[in-house]
Amino acid sequence: MSRLSGVIPPVATPLTPEGEVDVRSLEKLVAYLLQNGVTGLFALGTTSETPFLTDAQREVVLDTIVGANAGQVPVVAGVIDATTPRMIAQSRAAVARGVDGIVATACFYARVEHPVELRRHFRVLKEAVELPVLAYDLPVCVHVKLPPDALAELAHDGVIQGLKDSSGDLGSLRRVILATRDLPDFAIFTGSEVIVDSTLSMGGHGVVPGLGNVDPAGYVRLVRLAEAGDWNGARHEQERLCRLYEIVRAADPAQRGFFSSAFGSFKAALQLLGVIEHRTLALPQSALDDVEVERVRALLGEAGLL
Amino acid sequence: MSRLSGVIPPVATPLTPEGEVDVRSLEKLVAYLLQNGVTGLFALGTTSETPFLTDAQREVVLDTIVGANAGQVPVVAGVIDATTPRMIAQSRAAVARGVDGIVATACFYARVEHPVELRRHFRVLKEAVELPVLAYDLPVCVHVKLPPDALAELAHDGVIQGLKDSSGDLGSLRRVILATRDLPDFAIFTGSEVIVDSTLSMGGHGVVPGLGNVDPAGYVRLVRLAEAGDWNGARHEQERLCRLYEIVRAADPAQRGFFSSAFGSFKAALQLLGVIEHRTLALPQSALDDVEVERVRALLGEAGLL
Amino acid sequence: MSRLSGVIPPVATPLTPEGEVDVRSLEKLVAYLLQNGVTGLFALGTTSETPFLTDAQREVVLDTIVGANAGQVPVVAGVIDATTPRMIAQSRAAVARGVDGIVATACFYARVEHPVELRRHFRVLKEAVELPVLAYDLPVCVHVKLPPDALAELAHDGVIQGLKDSSGDLGSLRRVILATRDLPDFAIFTGSEVIVDSTLSMGGHGVVPGLGNVDPAGYVRLVRLAEAGDWNGARHEQERLCRLYEIVRAADPAQRGFFSSAFGSFKAALQLLGVIEHRTLALPQSALDDVEVERVRALLGEAGLL
Amino acid sequence: MSRLSGVIPPVATPLTPEGEVDVRSLEKLVAYLLQNGVTGLFALGTTSETPFLTDAQREVVLDTIVGANAGQVPVVAGVIDATTPRMIAQSRAAVARGVDGIVATACFYARVEHPVELRRHFRVLKEAVELPVLAYDLPVCVHVKLPPDALAELAHDGVIQGLKDSSGDLGSLRRVILATRDLPDFAIFTGSEVIVDSTLSMGGHGVVPGLGNVDPAGYVRLVRLAEAGDWNGARHEQERLCRLYEIVRAADPAQRGFFSSAFGSFKAALQLLGVIEHRTLALPQSALDDVEVERVRALLGEAGLL
Repeated sequence: MSRLSGVIPPVATPLTPEGEVDVRSLEKLVAYLLQNGVTGLFALGTTSETPFLTDAQREVVLDTIVGANAGQVPVVAGVIDATTPRMIAQSRAAVARGVDGIVATACFYARVEHPVELRRHFRVLKEAVELPVLAYDLPVCVHVKLPPDALAELAHDGVIQGLKDSSGDLGSLRRVILATRDLPDFAIFTGSEVIVDSTLSMGGHGVVPGLGNVDPAGYVRLVRLAEAGDWNGARHEQERLCRLYEIVRAADPAQRGFFSSAFGSFKAALQLLGVIEHRTLALPQSALDDVEVERVRALLGEAGLL
Repeated sequence: MSRLSGVIPPVATPLTPEGEVDVRSLEKLVAYLLQNGVTGLFALGTTSETPFLTDAQREVVLDTIVGANAGQVPVVAGVIDATTPRMIAQSRAAVARGVDGIVATACFYARVEHPVELRRHFRVLKEAVELPVLAYDLPVCVHVKLPPDALAELAHDGVIQGLKDSSGDLGSLRRVILATRDLPDFAIFTGSEVIVDSTLSMGGHGVVPGLGNVDPAGYVRLVRLAEAGDWNGARHEQERLCRLYEIVRAADPAQRGFFSSAFGSFKAALQLLGVIEHRTLALPQSALDDVEVERVRALLGEAGLL
Repeated sequence: MSRLSGVIPPVATPLTPEGEVDVRSLEKLVAYLLQNGVTGLFALGTTSETPFLTDAQREVVLDTIVGANAGQVPVVAGVIDATTPRMIAQSRAAVARGVDGIVATACFYARVEHPVELRRHFRVLKEAVELPVLAYDLPVCVHVKLPPDALAELAHDGVIQGLKDSSGDLGSLRRVILATRDLPDFAIFTGSEVIVDSTLSMGGHGVVPGLGNVDPAGYVRLVRLAEAGDWNGARHEQERLCRLYEIVRAADPAQRGFFSSAFGSFKAALQLLGVIEHRTLALPQSALDDVEVERVRALLGEAGLL
Repeated sequence: MSRLSGVIPPVATPLTPEGEVDVRSLEKLVAYLLQNGVTGLFALGTTSETPFLTDAQREVVLDTIVGANAGQVPVVAGVIDATTPRMIAQSRAAVARGVDGIVATACFYARVEHPVELRRHFRVLKEAVELPVLAYDLPVCVHVKLPPDALAELAHDGVIQGLKDSSGDLGSLRRVILATRDLPDFAIFTGSEVIVDSTLSMGGHGVVPGLGNVDPAGYVRLVRLAEAGDWNGARHEQERLCRLYEIVRAADPAQRGFFSSAFGSFKAALQLLGVIEHRTLALPQSALDDVEVERVRALLGEAGLL
């Protein structure tokens, strides 16, 4: 796998009303993403509701995505689990299903955030996996911020081949970008939907946008404009996507937390677009109700997607 | 199962140098705990390094503990995983292996801490499990504090049958104690090694002490003194255990984080006491070195355990 | 000043509707506290709304309290400000007004929480003040937890003469208690209203209860029962005060934050008891409305105070 | 005052070895900044060590800066204090000394972060001050994040005339930028030294860089390149400044916390550049030692400043 770049959405996991993987909708979603030009697929990301999926369900998801993709673009897989040994197990299951790389956070729940332990985590994981490893910085879920100096060291030592930054801290990300610029194969992605132009402008290589499930063509346009050096054009496309991103605030805050609001709005939009059948979320989340769906519909319309 | 009470240690998981469950040492540890009078066993707790154990290893642990216990005391099992569906899967595996109850935290990694979602989590879990459910409040790992009002409501509705409080917030725990005093079967345990007398004095029913792996007899004495109303005696025993608890600070903070320090010291002590063979910790943790072990030995001696 | 002990309430600061110090009500409040047996007065604490008071208002408060006390009990003064130099200035103003000791947190806003800087802070402060210094551990406001080892070191070095612990972390406080037991003059207070019996039982010397403004006699009874070794009696009195403490939840959470709820309820209660004239809070807080006041009245009645 | 824009450094406060304001060095610093083209001066910012300055020292600082500036550029003043009433007092003192606007955070220490109270804070402050008010978002010190919706509302209501964003959260800042684009006089500044090009590219108006004390000409060049639409040029200048910004990591982390490291390096650099006489920091901070200063010197050299 050469260096990843471009738009690699974390593929949502459509569910049946009973909470099982809706394979047919997932196949349609993969086709929708590929038809709109995404350059890779991130299976089993956070937006994919992976923390809620059993191991058996995760295997169904991987088989479906790898199968529907049929080698068209690289597929990387999240290995979301609490610690190194469990992430190794998740990695082996993913590798066995034919993915091209894995994406791993620091340990969570376990308090092994010591700098020595953090580095050991990625080194041990890399030794166990014979594929590219992308570090996944998501402090809002993991409650650890991956330090720029550790990331640069791991990159130079060949332990990690890329970074997905969902920390929201662009100053910190810039330190990593500058410290790894001499590594031609190290790939840096933002996980933020709303600062893609900024990330690319400072030297990042792409984006892993949850909203890319809904508007993959928009993110592909944005990246192409940036690659062409048309920063004004990129900014305008980004701002349209910023307004669309307001769908994550369509849910009633008295009823739904952040995951339900964000993932619920992506699924509601995909349902409105006819890509997936149901907008069911995994428990204990809850799907958007009809009033909230109407708010999503209005924003889709304003963004030119209906 | 009638109301749990007394000393229910989170049973450490002895490992071989290769990182596999050391079954023979685990059997010896269970025997050591039972011989010293513990009133229950908490398998697969945090101190058990459960977040690091694969599902297969967890099954070995449960089989070993349930087998070695042979029905002498109740066995409850932690179901440490990120979300409701995965905890249900862990619960079913535990129930199939013959445990008497399960212990469940709020979801972690996933941002479903909304009050509505938090309650739904426990309600859905209870419906799926036909055994007693103990709520496990451990904000330092889960990054959610279980609110006293939610706990009281779930207790009165029969959703949870007990609480293990490792929040360190005794004022909050007292609110739960007062709000559930009318429930004869609701059991409240502190997960803190150092405020057992205080918790019992205000109406708690027992303790789940990681340090109870090392000195089960001490915790049994402490609880019996408290139950007899001998608060001065209880305090003296507690203070001896507080001094022993300093073993968790035996490790070099430049090398090891909190889990390695704490669990590493418990295992080093059990090795020194001849109960388990190795002091190996699961990766990315690291075991105490010889200098650190000597500090543990000194504290064991001062506590009268050598 | 010999070692402080007993009940030292953080004296509320009654305000006029215009937001100025209501001197006459403050005098009545001091008289109310002294008549009910408090053993000291903590002027300019957090409950006193000190962070909202200008320097001129703080001087009025000190003059009023010192004057109304007329030497009956020791008066200590909070020196709430962001950093060492400003706390020194606040200390000198307090000393000039005749207080018997000062109470100081770590620095806040400023990021000088390094262990070296934390110790330097208290050492520099002590050198500048020729009176007893009590360390004030209030991480919920200061966003720094005073480490037990630093507190023990400062106590043994004579830098601090006491501790007011409002951390809620009784395990950590116990470490300080055990580490300073050999210091006959070191005084340890809990700032928690609801775990006084526990704190005294493990060796603490007293309490600084915001709720002590409302029911000083209750806290005095509680301490006397504990000092007499009547732990069951102490627990019953403590539990009555726990139920009374529910007044801090009388406010509508859609309208008022924690300070408005807590301090607002204390002032509403004091107004209902006829001790102070207005229940005004300093801006941007807001006083309880009539519906909320009725909830306070009901709880006062249940606690036997009406 | 029309809309602020460009480079408005938070002017460092040179101190004598005794900790008093070094007026002569401060005058030289103001001259250095003005000669290098800054478009405004932010007196009494965080970088100015304002939390450590007594009220008397703050007045000296304001008099010196306003005097040395002599009306050449707008001067805004931070009013760093814990709550609304105290910030009003600080504001009145600043206004009396001739500043053109004030910069105010949310309350800190006091727990009045409720949305209703947060808005009331700024509204009451604005009513009391007859000058432009800039909101100052600095969650790392204030422990409150100013919500984008509240900022947009306050901007549209004329309560605040600008924002200094030091949250590091560029996605959140972009929401404010988009929500206030229709307000021709609302000015948005980043407080980050390392993402100025990104902020300007998305529609921000300027920067308040602590590092701008050291290299004001660099930040002025950067802003001019951005204003000219030369984004590649802006990026290169920004990257040079990013490398220079590494001086904040010149200090030994075993000895100095974040403020000492950052402000200490700025002062060390200004001393090396001959602008200020001493590199003293206010207590409990400590100045860089000679070894650390050499690291600063090396980075200054690499940035072309020596």
